Order: sequence, then structure tokens, then C-alpha cells
Amino acid sequence: MSLSKSQLKLITSLQQKKYRTKHGLFVAEGTKVVSEFLNANFKLNSLFCVDFSSYSALENVTEISELALKKISTLKSPNNVLALFKIPVEATLQNEGFFVALDEINDPGNLGAIIRLCDWFGVTQLICSKNTVDCYNAKVVMASMGSLTRVSIVYTDLLTYLKASQLPKYAALMDGENVYKSNLPANAILVMGNEANGISKPILEVIDSSISIPRFGAMQLTESLNVATATAILLSEFKRQF
Amino acid sequence: MSLSKSQLKLITSLQQKKYRTKHGLFVAEGTKVVSEFLNANFKLNSLFCVDFSSYSALENVTEISELALKKISTLKSPNNVLALFKIPVEATLQNEGFFVALDEINDPGNLGAIIRLCDWFGVTQLICSKNTVDCYNAKVVMASMGSLTRVSIVYTDLLTYLKASQLPKYAALMDGENVYKSNLPANAILVMGNEANGISKPILEVIDSSISIPRFGAMQLTESLNVATATAILLSEFKRQF
Repeated sequence: MSLSKSQLKLITSLQQKKYRTKHGLFVAEGTKVVSEFLNANFKLNSLFCVDFSSYSALENVTEISELALKKISTLKSPNNVLALFKIPVEATLQNEGFFVALDEINDPGNLGAIIRLCDWFGVTQLICSKNTVDCYNAKVVMASMGSLTRVSIVYTDLLTYLKASQLPKYAALMDGENVYKSNLPANAILVMGNEANGISKPILEVIDSSISIPRFGAMQLTESLNVATATAILLSEFKRQF
Repeated sequence: MSLSKSQLKLITSLQQKKYRTKHGLFVAEGTKVVSEFLNANFKLNSLFCVDFSSYSALENVTEISELALKKISTLKSPNNVLALFKIPVEATLQNEGFFVALDEINDPGNLGAIIRLCDWFGVTQLICSKNTVDCYNAKVVMASMGSLTRVSIVYTDLLTYLKASQLPKYAALMDGENVYKSNLPANAILVMGNEANGISKPILEVIDSSISIPRFGAMQLTESLNVATATAILLSEFKRQF
């Protein structure tokens, strides 16, 4: 079998969020990432690979040429397999636990890295503002390296959510309290803001505490850490005491 | 003035390391990044901008069209200006301080993020193995966001360097001592390894201590943190006590 014109059209369309929503499908690429979704029992829609024998136990598998894979892949060096999975039903919002909330994260690489960090640090839920980049974006799927299968992610109106929550809300800011000297609770919401503009004003108004990572170098005051590396350090601080 | 054929050829050639070395030049793009290098007194070779008035005090400035900028830029959305700077003379190796050593970091985004972290945490020197991606690669220059002007970076034979150094050498490994419980010195070398293969065997043999970031989630044992986020957490641990 080879790739049909309608399959090519479908796969390419899934690069856009509106078509992912319309079809309820997303794309995963590469041997490792595809295995993670298969092992996590994500529902497979179809799979395209250059070597049928690796996936012969599955249904809806199409063997295609390297050239055809290159056509449907978003990667410079496609890695053996591309699969379409059903987007699962979104998790429900939880009340108790340690949560990360993202206020308009735009960069897919950053969201992917943060999902991976949430997985590592056992974050109970990741709550994303509606204008945060879609977690089923191909680059996010790639950068999160299978962690997407283990982290509970919800997109919601962040302001309404934060207002309703009883948990203490921490914001990562440039001029907050020194995080190394803060007494951090086990259950809380850590809010991280947009790459360029930080946390938006309405969200800032419902925050309980602001924390900062001290600067040790000669970096200028206008500089900040990348949001993924800042999240790494803050998650480590919340979790290291337990 | 417009862009000459030879200028176009030179700029494009600088995407490759061998031509950066040959000409002793590298490319910086975007208003903010170019300003950082100008303010840090990097020697300007030539500058190409869409609005001459912003750079009229400088020599070797060429006003070009948006279209011409797009031609020479490696960015999807070029940002007003592209400049060629002289690659400065490499710093000399230091003996005392807190250093980060990189064993074959391949991804420019990771190296850029690590340079930014070194800047934030006041790391005295960043030592790169010869097979680590070049810090004057356009994507590294971009991702390091001006931190390249403040961090002392040296490329050297890492094994020889580590063997000769008297400082305690820490390696970030999957099965090392819990970093949260480690007694970390102020002066040390933190060695971070390749994205896929970790730290190479010969380097491991000259390490004094290995440290790990504990895993709190259900992530599989084969998974690891991205090298930039792991570096963020470890630098934070080394510095937080002082």
C-alpha cells in the first residue's frame, strides 16, 4: 500500500489546531514517541512506517517509502514512523494537589519542556490558559517525549479557575521573594507567565505570593531566565523538601 | 546602498563553522541581540538594517529592504537588523572558580540556554569539549540572548583539562547521589553530558562525585530531563546555599 491523496491531505491538515479539533486527531512521530503513546493505550487511528514488520500486530498500518514519510513529516530527519492518535477526552479539573498553571505560553518547545518537567516532578495537574499553545501541536508532542501520556493537562479560563481555587497561588516574578528563603507548601499552584510579557495583569491580582530565583551573575536587570529553565528551578524548590 | 553579491555570499557562508573560523566572523540578528554585542564592545564588521536612522552613528552600515533582510536571515521573521561581528580571542582557562563543563552538547538551543543559565548564576567559566556545538552558531547566539557577551567560554580537550584540574569534579548522572542531600562546594566543575548518550566513558573515569536530581513522578527509568533544564536545577543547587 502507499499513501493516498486523502491521507496526505488529512495528515498535513493536522498541523493546524482547527483540523486537529475537527478530526479529534493528533500526530506523533518517531519510534520512541509512537511507542510511548501505544504503550499508554492511546487510541491509534492510523500508522505509517517504513518497516511494516515492527508494527504488524496493529491495525491500520501502512508501509510507505522513506520519501513518502519525508512528505508527511514535520521533521528534517523523519524517524521511521508517523502515527495519528485520537485526542483523548480532557481530564477534569482537580481541587487538591500541586499544580502548574501557564498564562499564555507560546513556544511549543517551552510547553514540551514544561510537560516533561511536570512528569519528572510528579505535578498533579498542568492547567493552561486558553491562549497557551495547544499540547497536541506536533512540536509539543515531540519536545514532551512521551510525558504527554502521563501528565494531566487541562485548558481553561485561567482567571476564573484561579479565583475559584482555594489553593495558595504562587507567581514567578522578577521582584518576588527569594525562593530559596521561602517556606513553600506541598499543595499549591505555581503560575508561570508568557515568554515576552510575563503574567498578565488580571492574573497577577489573584496571586497570593510572588517568588523569584536570585540572580548571581552580572546579567542586566531586564534579563530573565527562559520560562522552561525557570520552571525547572522552581519545581525543584517546591519538591526538594519533601 | 543595497546588498552586494559578495556580501550575500559571505553572510550565507557564516552559517557554517569552517567559514566562521576562516573569516573570524559570526552573525547576530535582531535589535536586542545586536545591541547587546554593540554595548559589550564586540568589534563590528558590518551591519545590515531596514532603518538606517537607528544605526547612523556606526560605520559599515548598509540599509537594505525587508526582502533583502529575509534573504540573509536564518529567522522566519527577521527582526530589523543583522550584523557581523568579529569572533573575539578565546578566553584563557581559569584555575579557581565554579565552572560548567560540557561533554558534546549538540543542540544549539540547549547550548544557548546553558550559556544564559551560566550568566544568571554567575558561573566563572564554561568549558566545552571540542565536539560541542560552536557557540557562534547563529541559533546559539539567538538562544543565549546576549549572555554570550558576559560568559567566558573555552573549547578544549575536555579529558586533558579535567585530568589537570585540582577542582572537585561533579557529574550529572541518572544514578548519582541525591543532589538535595549533597554537600556541594563553592568551587567545583559540574560536568553535563551529551543529549542522547550522557557523559562519555573516559570523562566518567576522572569524575570525583556523581549527583542526580530525584524523580518524583511516574516517569520511566529510561527517561531523563532535558540537559538544559537539568543544568538549571543543578546550578540552582550549587548556588542556593551561598
